[in-house]
Amino acid sequence: MKFSDAELMTMAIAAGEKARLHAPPNPWVGALVVSDQGVVISEGRTQAPGESHAEVEALRRAGPAARGATLVVTLEPCSHVGRTGPCSQAIIEAGVAKVVVGTLDPDIRVNGRGIEILREAGIEVQLGVEEEAVRDQLAAYLWQRTTGRPYVVAKVASTLDGIVAMSDGTSQWITSEAARRDAHVLRAQSQAIVVGAGTVRSDDPSLTARLGDIVVEPLRVVLGRAPLVARVRPCLELSGGLEDVIAALAERGVLQILVEGGPTTTSSFFAAGLVNHVAWYVAPAFGGARHSKGALCELETSTMSELRRGRVVDVRRIGEDVRVDVEVLWR
Amino acid sequence: MKFSDAELMTMAIAAGEKARLHAPPNPWVGALVVSDQGVVISEGRTQAPGESHAEVEALRRAGPAARGATLVVTLEPCSHVGRTGPCSQAIIEAGVAKVVVGTLDPDIRVNGRGIEILREAGIEVQLGVEEEAVRDQLAAYLWQRTTGRPYVVAKVASTLDGIVAMSDGTSQWITSEAARRDAHVLRAQSQAIVVGAGTVRSDDPSLTARLGDIVVEPLRVVLGRAPLVARVRPCLELSGGLEDVIAALAERGVLQILVEGGPTTTSSFFAAGLVNHVAWYVAPAFGGARHSKGALCELETSTMSELRRGRVVDVRRIGEDVRVDVEVLWR
Repeated sequence: MKFSDAELMTMAIAAGEKARLHAPPNPWVGALVVSDQGVVISEGRTQAPGESHAEVEALRRAGPAARGATLVVTLEPCSHVGRTGPCSQAIIEAGVAKVVVGTLDPDIRVNGRGIEILREAGIEVQLGVEEEAVRDQLAAYLWQRTTGRPYVVAKVASTLDGIVAMSDGTSQWITSEAARRDAHVLRAQSQAIVVGAGTVRSDDPSLTARLGDIVVEPLRVVLGRAPLVARVRPCLELSGGLEDVIAALAERGVLQILVEGGPTTTSSFFAAGLVNHVAWYVAPAFGGARHSKGALCELETSTMSELRRGRVVDVRRIGEDVRVDVEVLWR
Repeated sequence: MKFSDAELMTMAIAAGEKARLHAPPNPWVGALVVSDQGVVISEGRTQAPGESHAEVEALRRAGPAARGATLVVTLEPCSHVGRTGPCSQAIIEAGVAKVVVGTLDPDIRVNGRGIEILREAGIEVQLGVEEEAVRDQLAAYLWQRTTGRPYVVAKVASTLDGIVAMSDGTSQWITSEAARRDAHVLRAQSQAIVVGAGTVRSDDPSLTARLGDIVVEPLRVVLGRAPLVARVRPCLELSGGLEDVIAALAERGVLQILVEGGPTTTSSFFAAGLVNHVAWYVAPAFGGARHSKGALCELETSTMSELRRGRVVDVRRIGEDVRVDVEVLWR
């Protein structure tokens, strides 16, 4: 039984996922070389910046067996010389017969040109296999390359009724240890973590990303001034409007921002229409709202037709809690 | 390959689920007759009140093949003569060699006596297979038989941040058509649906349970007075404290109450510690809290240690929304 193109693409997506933490600012791409008998010969994923892209890695591992084979890759192969040579050239030289691509690379140096080069060399190219799943996985990269701005993920942890702090201000710990551990992965996947100065003063978080042995150090950003002895230091202190904050982080090449700070900060990013994705941890608990603090308490929705909506991209149980991932849809 | 006892119990649970709508006030039990070769010979589920229980139904379908076989049943077989003869006697007469039981029946007329009778007759009895799953399925029945009070399920439909109405009071429709259809199943599984008079005046709901061709008519209960022309009529109008409401419905033999009315009513059931289970429909939407109405806006939680908690028993995607089922844990 041969795997279908869709099944192979799902495997390539899984291979790419293993590159998510180290690939940025490059995309976390996965690739497979598959023989004409349908046997998976090799797998590749994006290496550290400056090293091989996923396609080249998979071809290198396949060796001469790549000749006449099919290459399955989540993102369009690049066509330009950056820190590494163009992947499309390496594919042609390896003698690959067919390339199956998940989605186009919107990077202005590629954007269809990678596929054009392959087709010009007589290689059969199939585009758009499992495209929605690939676009969900690479959402931050695709957004950043399309708009030039970082992709904003808001992390919230609340009760089922959306409460993040009780009436006396206490807020730790609504969600379980497992959910808090999971949030460290979310931090490690981001290049900058943003909190409000209020959260720094009240909770004094260190905002590190602890993943067992792996140490990832995203840029820590405080909106306003952090006390000199705050655990969040060394950090970047930014003031001004949120548009300025986004611009400053865009300039530093940040691909994904994680907004993790208090309801005031999170609400303001929402109110400004700047949130792309929400990772919402829901605890099976009931806060009530009289004097308690809602997760988006500074946001105003006058009437139903103004309600900000999204699309559920994932739902998972994390320990005792539930994590709902939503892509925010702005009209 | 023979099925394990746990696998067989899971099938019996599925058989019992098909009886949920018509069985009350009896429990929605499922039973299988399995040969000593491990072949499933027959399946039975609780019939309409006054007709066969699940065990008797499964035995009848198995006929002489039940001799020497194993009976797998979610709930302890009854030992008393009610509208039907005792199941334990029917099991002995059928010549069953072994009985696998999910959980004990707390009905004071049974409560271990069913199993005792079987063992006295020389039948091997195994108790407690997949017990947590069986207890989750029969939670309403077990609670009602243990406490003499109806099991209270609160239905809520909110945004991710727990908002049920915008600042101008508009609230329809936060969740999708699929979620609203699913809520009709929840109504059909309940014997009484409770709403506040405020919801009747503002939304004028009919509170019917439409399930395609199946028509189920739970008792519709309004807390206070409903307008004479309200769609909810004919209905029962109850006043007084919530304890009185619970007592009045207990007297009518109601096994499960569905609380479906507005944040004020839902909050008051929570504040009184009367909610057993929550079916929370979460829309991928963001309400904000300034002047919006939270799902439990009349509930007060002063500090984290007072936070009311529960246990997630199920999480499902329903159309565009997510349904989280939580068993409320009262200290």
